[in-house]
Amino acid sequence: MVHYTDEIKFKTKGEVTIKDITSEVAKVIKASKVRHGTVTVFHPGSTGVISTIEYEPGLVQDLEEALERLFPKDLNYKHHLKWSDGNGHSHIRATFLGPSLVVPIIDGAMTLGQWQQIIFIDLDVRPRERKVIVQVMGE
Amino acid sequence: MVHYTDEIKFKTKGEVTIKDITSEVAKVIKASKVRHGTVTVFHPGSTGVISTIEYEPGLVQDLEEALERLFPKDLNYKHHLKWSDGNGHSHIRATFLGPSLVVPIIDGAMTLGQWQQIIFIDLDVRPRERKVIVQVMGE
Amino acid sequence: MVHYTDEIKFKTKGEVTIKDITSEVAKVIKASKVRHGTVTVFHPGSTGVISTIEYEPGLVQDLEEALERLFPKDLNYKHHLKWSDGNGHSHIRATFLGPSLVVPIIDGAMTLGQWQQIIFIDLDVRPRERKVIVQVMGE
Repeated sequence: MVHYTDEIKFKTKGEVTIKDITSEVAKVIKASKVRHGTVTVFHPGSTGVISTIEYEPGLVQDLEEALERLFPKDLNYKHHLKWSDGNGHSHIRATFLGPSLVVPIIDGAMTLGQWQQIIFIDLDVRPRERKVIVQVMGE
Repeated sequence: MVHYTDEIKFKTKGEVTIKDITSEVAKVIKASKVRHGTVTVFHPGSTGVISTIEYEPGLVQDLEEALERLFPKDLNYKHHLKWSDGNGHSHIRATFLGPSLVVPIIDGAMTLGQWQQIIFIDLDVRPRERKVIVQVMGE
Repeated sequence: MVHYTDEIKFKTKGEVTIKDITSEVAKVIKASKVRHGTVTVFHPGSTGVISTIEYEPGLVQDLEEALERLFPKDLNYKHHLKWSDGNGHSHIRATFLGPSLVVPIIDGAMTLGQWQQIIFIDLDVRPRERKVIVQVMGE
């Protein structure tokens, strides 16, 4: 079995950054030389998430609006009693969406659909330097 | 290490189809002869998702109602400016629920609970031919 | 390849119990002796989920409030026509949040962020004895 791990690093502009990381993940898989297996894409943090979407500007805006409609920024979050950074909504959104995604690899490529991209969503309120772990396992 | 992949294919009736695919996933695991490992169930598309539920008609209806309550079909989705297929809500629901599920395999069987089934949810607005990737890894 | 599985067992007080299980998961990884691979954390049931959060009392309360705001307990769930246990909201919440989490392991440790803990959320309405499956795969 082969295991191969790399990191994708980038800067975000803060609330809300939705970044297409599909090609960066594909590069790690190519470097791993794994032909059949899985890739785990994981964000080590509590205000960022990994998911998939058809990455086009309309849906990016629709997703931002859905996040604000379901988890409004201006509610009275109790998290603000502990820290004064005003990102309670960021944390709750992240718990709902989740930090991890696993995609099968067949013949050296992810089995994504034609209109399906892997995204990192920065839900925090300020610009940050972010890291995504990409781990490939297989043969 | 063994890796074994197969596809489950079926037709859906469109918005919203919630299909129990547990027995089809179990068949792939049996064919793989893997005794200990994981199965990754993945939908290659941006308007369908994989999750689990106690599959009974009441909860199927409750889930449909929750999707409509949280992500109403008739909002003014910006995705409709790009395509005229009117499925902006389908995409946003899919990003929240996710296309991937990983279940441990012990002694040749998934570790699902007694009342826990694996479902594919077609969130698109029209009937479609769908595919789910089932990848087994282990020994 | 090494595969190693163990269970975490505990009692919950019912609606809603949010339990930090990070150290228990880390113990299983240590026992597995796996240095590089993945850990799959899975709940075998339809009213409990696995996710991550910065585990502090404010966010625990914020998460409980978000669950009640988005999936109110007192809606007329059709699930109650089948069983009289009044936990329709518990099931629907669980389908949205999901029973499974995969985290990469590098140099024998999970790649969690500093403020990111693994949680089990019991969404059912009554105290229960719960089980979480921890499966480590790697080398």
